[in-house]
Amino acid sequence: MAIWLEQASGDFETRFAEFLTTKREVSEDVNAIVRAIVDDVRTRGDAALVEYSQRFDRVDLHEVGLRVTDAEIDAAFGQVDETVIEALKLAAERIERHHARQMPKDDIYEDALGVGLGSRWTAIEAVGLYVPGGTASYPSSVLMNAVPARVAGVERVVMVCPATGGNINPAVLVAARIAGVSEIYRVGGAQAVAALAYGTETIAPVYKIVGPGNAYVAAAKRQVFGTVGIDMIAGPSEVLVIADAENDPDWLAADLLAQAEHDAGAQAILLTDDRSLGEAVEKAVERQLKTLSRSETAAESWRDFGAIILVDDLKAGLPLANRIAAEHLELAVADPDQLLPGIRNAGAIFIGRHTPEVIGDYVGGSNHVLPTARSARFSSGLSVLDFVKRTSILRLGPDQLRALGPAAITLANSEGLDAHARSVSIRLNQG
Amino acid sequence: MAIWLEQASGDFETRFAEFLTTKREVSEDVNAIVRAIVDDVRTRGDAALVEYSQRFDRVDLHEVGLRVTDAEIDAAFGQVDETVIEALKLAAERIERHHARQMPKDDIYEDALGVGLGSRWTAIEAVGLYVPGGTASYPSSVLMNAVPARVAGVERVVMVCPATGGNINPAVLVAARIAGVSEIYRVGGAQAVAALAYGTETIAPVYKIVGPGNAYVAAAKRQVFGTVGIDMIAGPSEVLVIADAENDPDWLAADLLAQAEHDAGAQAILLTDDRSLGEAVEKAVERQLKTLSRSETAAESWRDFGAIILVDDLKAGLPLANRIAAEHLELAVADPDQLLPGIRNAGAIFIGRHTPEVIGDYVGGSNHVLPTARSARFSSGLSVLDFVKRTSILRLGPDQLRALGPAAITLANSEGLDAHARSVSIRLNQG
Repeated sequence: MAIWLEQASGDFETRFAEFLTTKREVSEDVNAIVRAIVDDVRTRGDAALVEYSQRFDRVDLHEVGLRVTDAEIDAAFGQVDETVIEALKLAAERIERHHARQMPKDDIYEDALGVGLGSRWTAIEAVGLYVPGGTASYPSSVLMNAVPARVAGVERVVMVCPATGGNINPAVLVAARIAGVSEIYRVGGAQAVAALAYGTETIAPVYKIVGPGNAYVAAAKRQVFGTVGIDMIAGPSEVLVIADAENDPDWLAADLLAQAEHDAGAQAILLTDDRSLGEAVEKAVERQLKTLSRSETAAESWRDFGAIILVDDLKAGLPLANRIAAEHLELAVADPDQLLPGIRNAGAIFIGRHTPEVIGDYVGGSNHVLPTARSARFSSGLSVLDFVKRTSILRLGPDQLRALGPAAITLANSEGLDAHARSVSIRLNQG
Repeated sequence: MAIWLEQASGDFETRFAEFLTTKREVSEDVNAIVRAIVDDVRTRGDAALVEYSQRFDRVDLHEVGLRVTDAEIDAAFGQVDETVIEALKLAAERIERHHARQMPKDDIYEDALGVGLGSRWTAIEAVGLYVPGGTASYPSSVLMNAVPARVAGVERVVMVCPATGGNINPAVLVAARIAGVSEIYRVGGAQAVAALAYGTETIAPVYKIVGPGNAYVAAAKRQVFGTVGIDMIAGPSEVLVIADAENDPDWLAADLLAQAEHDAGAQAILLTDDRSLGEAVEKAVERQLKTLSRSETAAESWRDFGAIILVDDLKAGLPLANRIAAEHLELAVADPDQLLPGIRNAGAIFIGRHTPEVIGDYVGGSNHVLPTARSARFSSGLSVLDFVKRTSILRLGPDQLRALGPAAITLANSEGLDAHARSVSIRLNQG
């Protein structure tokens, strides 16, 4: 039973504001534990990785080795269905083609004064990719993180993944090879993040770490931030389905449940101008819930965080959508192009009744790493831009320095920075 | 006395590696204090701002008001030299013109299958800009942060600045108006960051907070990260001057000191292939130091963190430059274009003997907010991109869903996500 929020009702604003600030995650304070692990790996390197892997993942790295070998990856191809391998290849190709368009272009130019200005983009040299173990070990996520890094030109894409009980999901290894990952290490948790940030005897350090993980991994990423770059800390995912009356309730129910089954903290929201559609979707959700293998998770998410928002008309609902700033937004309406311009805050928009969000999870070509927890108001999904950095360029000759120098001296003096002023004036006087 | 590091000497690699990891900042643990302030502002709003301002800035906000009025800004124009106002206007114009080129373009297209894909960029609606009080209250920084936000299309650019002892630097108010800041509040510290993130009765919340600040401000920004976006936490600044023999040592000394005078933790490095130039620059630094109003700060920085790196030839020195990944890099050489392609990690490059870094601080047009502490290996300076966000777009019709759907179902099933698979299959079966 999701909650109903009706725009026409008197207490709507209060209830909606409250709904927006509902916390969907228990924040575990694991900082002290993580701090100790990070420091230990920094000091003792591989030896610490061996110990923590024994303790947390019940795997003896002395026996199986820290680095996953080429032969093991070859073997993984034999353990994965051919149709899955083909689907991963299709997905990787589409992700690669789409992301290649995101590569920013250098812009070097001269202005009217003859000052040379510009932006030059270069790839980050080495990037680490965290891949969770167990049930959250998704090959699709390997593609979504690693392919854009390769497209950007990152030379070393270093994957870490815990071998929980000795095993790594073979589909993850297959995806890693398809995506062009350069090195794979059998280690997870805060210890893996520390190894990527500071390096060990076996693992050379990287400059940025991306990829999802549990509370320990997230805390470790926050702690090493500064020494290396990190991506956004992902929260539980969410979908907002904007739907008119002309929808098959079963289709929408499936879309809502596709979010809900991810995590008990996930959030599925239907926004509609048709009360009977809302009621029909609600019934369809209840019906479909019974048949899911992850029905407990999905039911919990739908019960605790699911919502049906009833609006007077869909256009009037868009400001609500912008306040929700959903990670995923579906436009299941007859004329989506009428609503599209009014949507400002969303990680990704799925247009029309034949674009279920799930296509974007796998084979659409766009990235499925998207801003959660309303952060689409100020941040973007993963892209090639996350794997490059910009250097700005400035070039003056004596003439340009004569033209701009006096203003720089004026400002330096007004800020009380003598050496700043001198660095310009000394050139003007002697030039 | 800066240290000398000579590439030809046997222990160079060890000493250089150690040099790279030298900490230049004392990290104060102010998290608990900041947590209490942030919570208090979140709970009590304006009343808390009034109390903290009384305590930390010795200013009675009941008396002078939280918001800076238009009349006060008008008055500020009367208190600032006309030449400074003109220089600020010149700087703002140049920053605006350069940053306008950074605006990313939407890219909406159809692929060979007829799948609609795309990236759509929109401005963040409201951004907060922290401006420190006292001596670190730089009008140039107001321009560097606010102008790109305005260029991006941010509607509300909200500035906060502590009125230490009742005063705000009038040049900061002038710069704010020139840059198009929408609202200015007389509050600083962690309390100002909390007010921007959560809002109070007077200050409506923003979605992202940028700008430099002390340890309390930095800790507050880290704490509210997630609720709002933040920019990089800036460390003390640094310059690397790459110089051949044909330089005037006094020019280079002035450039090195222009960094050193910022902060005792700032770092100025000369990399040259000419020992006698290095020695001459060292002498010039000692000489110039005596005449600076901030000579104590500059001397401390140069003594503790300054360095002269002697290399066999400048090209062989570039890998060292890339490991240093300096915020600012000057190429004071006869043929800078020969070295330029070899530089991968730098926040900004200043090309040729007539491009002192200081021009970039004020009137070059490029941004002076740049990655410090070696983070140019993985991050970029402030730009229009920091004030926009990207929404990705996906659009399939029945044909495209038939083409891509089966692969999505395969991957969803292999990841054990039933509702994901159903969300596609239900459309294929009924479509």
